Amino acid sequence: MSREQQKQDAAAKAVEYIPDNSIVGLGSGSTMYWVMQQLGELVQQGMHVQGIPSSPTTEQWAKEFHVPLVYFSTEITKADVAIDGADEVAPGFHMTKGGGGSLLREKIIADAADKVIIAVDESKIVQQLGSFPLPVEVTPFGWQKTVRDIQSLGCDPVLRRSHGAPFETDNANYVIDCDFQLIERPDELHNQLIQLVGVVETGLFADQVDIVIAGTDSGAEMFENKR
Amino acid sequence: MSREQQKQDAAAKAVEYIPDNSIVGLGSGSTMYWVMQQLGELVQQGMHVQGIPSSPTTEQWAKEFHVPLVYFSTEITKADVAIDGADEVAPGFHMTKGGGGSLLREKIIADAADKVIIAVDESKIVQQLGSFPLPVEVTPFGWQKTVRDIQSLGCDPVLRRSHGAPFETDNANYVIDCDFQLIERPDELHNQLIQLVGVVETGLFADQVDIVIAGTDSGAEMFENKR
Repeated sequence: MSREQQKQDAAAKAVEYIPDNSIVGLGSGSTMYWVMQQLGELVQQGMHVQGIPSSPTTEQWAKEFHVPLVYFSTEITKADVAIDGADEVAPGFHMTKGGGGSLLREKIIADAADKVIIAVDESKIVQQLGSFPLPVEVTPFGWQKTVRDIQSLGCDPVLRRSHGAPFETDNANYVIDCDFQLIERPDELHNQLIQLVGVVETGLFADQVDIVIAGTDSGAEMFENKR
Repeated sequence: MSREQQKQDAAAKAVEYIPDNSIVGLGSGSTMYWVMQQLGELVQQGMHVQGIPSSPTTEQWAKEFHVPLVYFSTEITKADVAIDGADEVAPGFHMTKGGGGSLLREKIIADAADKVIIAVDESKIVQQLGSFPLPVEVTPFGWQKTVRDIQSLGCDPVLRRSHGAPFETDNANYVIDCDFQLIERPDELHNQLIQLVGVVETGLFADQVDIVIAGTDSGAEMFENKR
């Protein structure tokens, strides 16, 4: 079964966890395309939801599939549920995100949600985080100093580039891809990084996830974080 | 003696701590005007320094007084010394900054410096921080959620505005002015705030200062942080 089919199966299962009349935080990345398609179908069948998009691409998909949108305001500061993909999911419900560069808004949306549901294909389930460099969002001013500080935590940090210039996030920040090799203690590493002046947010989501749905060759499997 | 004269005296004393042939982090705010003027005179007398400015205003003053400038690069990630003002300085060498909205760049520059020197007029020396609301720099996306989270730490947060729109920092972020009343444990409060998703940096500088120079009616007084 193709990875795309696995993502589609996981997405179909994930949208079952969205209650009627709810506000839904909408993550970013390729699996979200299938989530939006499935959610659009539910809306067409009469379900009432309003989605808060975490990126321009997700916003575009929502419009394509006629998923009603809403935005953070002084009245709307919470979501009932958030759905998102992930780059890696490890035991303990820790995960990494940010390969696509939307980690900060994804994290704000996950943080605002009562329940966080992650839909992934099987290849994203790992025994330990760290096969990909960890994305860390930083302030452009003095990023060279911030890189030096990150380096002192024991990794090989590289400024993400796009078309020869620094890659700029939707929040006008830069991304440093940090190869820490295997990440033993995600919560500890996040705490060390977030204390650094110049670091805005990290791609480490430590124990923020409630449900993981993984598409496999024998269908979508559900794992619940029983905290 | 006027407050302006006290600032001028403190600035004159502060520049004495700048070594020849050094890179100097340059903070922001009204006292920095006098620092730049004094530093310009030293440069004219043959001293060699290069300043890293933390704001467009400071950069402009440096040009006015012919202080050579340099910027963070892969070669320049540290400063020998940083000079800045403060909104409040309390025992324990804790301070608050950010009234002018430049707290993030000021903190990056202080963090990059081997030695941090603060020049203030006498009125900035307080027994406990918190007479002014604490400025906290946040990501615009979902700032309403971030305000709710800050509020839950026990303060009255207000989005800073300018000409009717949200005030935007040099880093394209917003500032939330947080009235915590008196701040008992600056380091603890900073740690709580910096962990919040959406918070980029706080105006609390806990134990980052090496030397405080306060202008008084009987001259500039020096306090050294003997760590």
